[in-house]
Amino acid sequence: MADLSHLNEQERARMVDISEKTDTVRTARARSGITVSEEAYTQIEEGTGEKGNVLATAQVAGITGAKKTSDWIPLCHPLMLSGADIQFEWEQHEPDTYYLSITSEVKVKGNTGVEMEALTAASAAALTVYDMCKSTGKDMTIGPTYLLDKTGGKSGDYHRES
Amino acid sequence: MADLSHLNEQERARMVDISEKTDTVRTARARSGITVSEEAYTQIEEGTGEKGNVLATAQVAGITGAKKTSDWIPLCHPLMLSGADIQFEWEQHEPDTYYLSITSEVKVKGNTGVEMEALTAASAAALTVYDMCKSTGKDMTIGPTYLLDKTGGKSGDYHRES
Amino acid sequence: MADLSHLNEQERARMVDISEKTDTVRTARARSGITVSEEAYTQIEEGTGEKGNVLATAQVAGITGAKKTSDWIPLCHPLMLSGADIQFEWEQHEPDTYYLSITSEVKVKGNTGVEMEALTAASAAALTVYDMCKSTGKDMTIGPTYLLDKTGGKSGDYHRES
Amino acid sequence: MADLSHLNEQERARMVDISEKTDTVRTARARSGITVSEEAYTQIEEGTGEKGNVLATAQVAGITGAKKTSDWIPLCHPLMLSGADIQFEWEQHEPDTYYLSITSEVKVKGNTGVEMEALTAASAAALTVYDMCKSTGKDMTIGPTYLLDKTGGKSGDYHRES
Amino acid sequence: MADLSHLNEQERARMVDISEKTDTVRTARARSGITVSEEAYTQIEEGTGEKGNVLATAQVAGITGAKKTSDWIPLCHPLMLSGADIQFEWEQHEPDTYYLSITSEVKVKGNTGVEMEALTAASAAALTVYDMCKSTGKDMTIGPTYLLDKTGGKSGDYHRES
Amino acid sequence: MADLSHLNEQERARMVDISEKTDTVRTARARSGITVSEEAYTQIEEGTGEKGNVLATAQVAGITGAKKTSDWIPLCHPLMLSGADIQFEWEQHEPDTYYLSITSEVKVKGNTGVEMEALTAASAAALTVYDMCKSTGKDMTIGPTYLLDKTGGKSGDYHRES
Repeated sequence: MADLSHLNEQERARMVDISEKTDTVRTARARSGITVSEEAYTQIEEGTGEKGNVLATAQVAGITGAKKTSDWIPLCHPLMLSGADIQFEWEQHEPDTYYLSITSEVKVKGNTGVEMEALTAASAAALTVYDMCKSTGKDMTIGPTYLLDKTGGKSGDYHRES
Repeated sequence: MADLSHLNEQERARMVDISEKTDTVRTARARSGITVSEEAYTQIEEGTGEKGNVLATAQVAGITGAKKTSDWIPLCHPLMLSGADIQFEWEQHEPDTYYLSITSEVKVKGNTGVEMEALTAASAAALTVYDMCKSTGKDMTIGPTYLLDKTGGKSGDYHRES
Repeated sequence: MADLSHLNEQERARMVDISEKTDTVRTARARSGITVSEEAYTQIEEGTGEKGNVLATAQVAGITGAKKTSDWIPLCHPLMLSGADIQFEWEQHEPDTYYLSITSEVKVKGNTGVEMEALTAASAAALTVYDMCKSTGKDMTIGPTYLLDKTGGKSGDYHRES
Repeated sequence: MADLSHLNEQERARMVDISEKTDTVRTARARSGITVSEEAYTQIEEGTGEKGNVLATAQVAGITGAKKTSDWIPLCHPLMLSGADIQFEWEQHEPDTYYLSITSEVKVKGNTGVEMEALTAASAAALTVYDMCKSTGKDMTIGPTYLLDKTGGKSGDYHRES
Repeated sequence: MADLSHLNEQERARMVDISEKTDTVRTARARSGITVSEEAYTQIEEGTGEKGNVLATAQVAGITGAKKTSDWIPLCHPLMLSGADIQFEWEQHEPDTYYLSITSEVKVKGNTGVEMEALTAASAAALTVYDMCKSTGKDMTIGPTYLLDKTGGKSGDYHRES
Repeated sequence: MADLSHLNEQERARMVDISEKTDTVRTARARSGITVSEEAYTQIEEGTGEKGNVLATAQVAGITGAKKTSDWIPLCHPLMLSGADIQFEWEQHEPDTYYLSITSEVKVKGNTGVEMEALTAASAAALTVYDMCKSTGKDMTIGPTYLLDKTGGKSGDYHRES
């Protein structure tokens, strides 16, 4: 029996140790959005699409997405979220193009931050809007998706500069 | 006992009936991406980040994301995917800004399309890159995320015009 | 080495073989419900509870519950549901007691029935109503929960006698 | 660009913030049950059904249901349960009708109660009994399902009045 | 903007395309096992452990493990299993060492084999036995775990030579 | 109405109460492995298999397996893991047989140990190697799988004697 080789150290994904970090209240907010046609905008506002109430469903998808983040992102630590919320706001970018801005807000009392939970929540909500409106056309575009701000934790607060 | 009210029909999300649609081979490709700093770019290329091999992990996250799409997106039908793949490509947008383009490709033999699976796969891969590089800075931006093309199904093929 | 014993055959749960059953369109409808106080009724109708829109959320919970049935019920076969829907209707049973009747409807093209999916969908919707209204009092009662009817499959149609 | 509208505030489901609540030991017990025919009763007691040991399987389904509650109920907080148990008891209601009473008991050391976990555990156990006995007839009825009592937390103890 | 590099092709995990494979009935059987002390053996046979009925729980864990295989093994295709079963048998290897042999059997009508489902089912059952007996000592050893045989599919049948 | 019987107490699986146990840092390491042919060995080392990078994928499967342990093993308590890692090492056992040794390491700050998480992580990694190499032959054997050591908790440290 011989020890054949050291494996390439580059393949070594790991879930880094956070057991020394302290429990504090941490928050994060992220933003995503989706550009939709006037037809989709009307369906969303009037609830006339074949799949039903778009924003109520996307709201639930965003919150459950926040809860499932460690299931979707392989190296994310599981966390017991204290709270999660999603907000939608319309902007009109061009005559027949509507942009639905999506803001997620996640809170935890724990030993690591919730940036990924906020980003995943916003992404899941945007994907759900796409799913429910795609019979009106597939040219919708999701994003940009980014972190707005975070508070709590040793690395300090973060506020994105616009 | 009295029947009190018809509920507001607007709240009626539903998973629409696809039992009459026929089983055919269907494909979809979607694109997402993420803008990262030079430091993150170097970590990804040289595998020196604390969380390990970024692209190999994002690749797995993308494929498992495709498989879990009906778990992320409330009204998506469960599907037995035939295949899924993710590809990465770097573009340099500005002197110190790097853009990682992410293309997903999903295939099924079934009675509904896989657009959502492709979009979810690309989103999960992008979120995983963010997670593994976020110690280098939180200014990364994900997206735009959109459908490149689809084939198969009664509604015909789709190719996004660039 | 000795063969010590035949294990008690009674412990042998199994997922029974359905590979010989034929693919046909099958449907099932189930009913559940929940008795709530006037305060909860008002919150649901006016959307004034702290957790938000009760019925829209319960609707999503019911549909996702149908999709996850084989994850909740150990010996249920996984199925690719073709469609799922939930309907709510109010009945007033006593001066200050309101009964929310919940009807689920599930459809599949497959080789086993969807009775469990319909029952699970109705149960998940009822539990979600409980969760969202429990700050108004914990005396709510869920049920009875039962199968209304099913169609398709070798065992024939079923209609519950009221 | 114009801000088009305030969305209907009624659609705003949210997972309410519990980060200020304190960690204490909390318990909850719930009850459900199922009415079965004499044939099903005999199968359960003698372990002669085609799907095997009904109560052992329902017991496991109840416990895993408690653990997955935040996956079933969209706005439930994820919790690290400290313990869970299920108990069954037969009652004979009429000559040929048997009622299987199901009691769940769940415990946590955390900052929110486990009422939903107890209710979900009892529901999952009852649904599993239905699944394993449904070849004997589909007239079984689940419920009523309700909270028996809870202890711990700021809102104080609760004991249902029978 | 410049195309910077071809990524290392070695990192490219993919879920290979099976859409051209035909639907046939496929089966697989796998074997695992666990070596336990006399104390654990007695607990299992007499049901006196603090966690309850070991084999009934391991049976359920094995079957649900078969159903969840595509969730645990990243590149496994999702499959709608037609049936799954687990069998246990005791062997006495040395005066105070008992070996519980675990055989899983999985069946599908589909376009790819169920070897991984059988191996995962047997592994999940063995891990569950370990979990339920570990208060009697942690020296238990699981395995070897291997495929016994498979039938169906283009690559033909396989029977392991002992 | 009559109370018919005490159910067989043996069927009573339960998730035992750990609410009185104290939160401390706990670790566990487990080992598994897989015997592969020279062809599979070469594919793994050179990345030439049709499913791509075996070890990077198995690494991710092991870590996500650790996180999902309470979903695989029915009576395991859910835990918020602080860290998880997997290491691979080759041994050559015979001229044309290669053994890939797999070591998992899991850490938590919590009130119960992580032995099951370490064992499940190692098992999931081994199963993933099997899946990715099975086109080279199905004679691969997984295991033995066992606990190497654990630290923390009232029951004290454990080190397996080789």
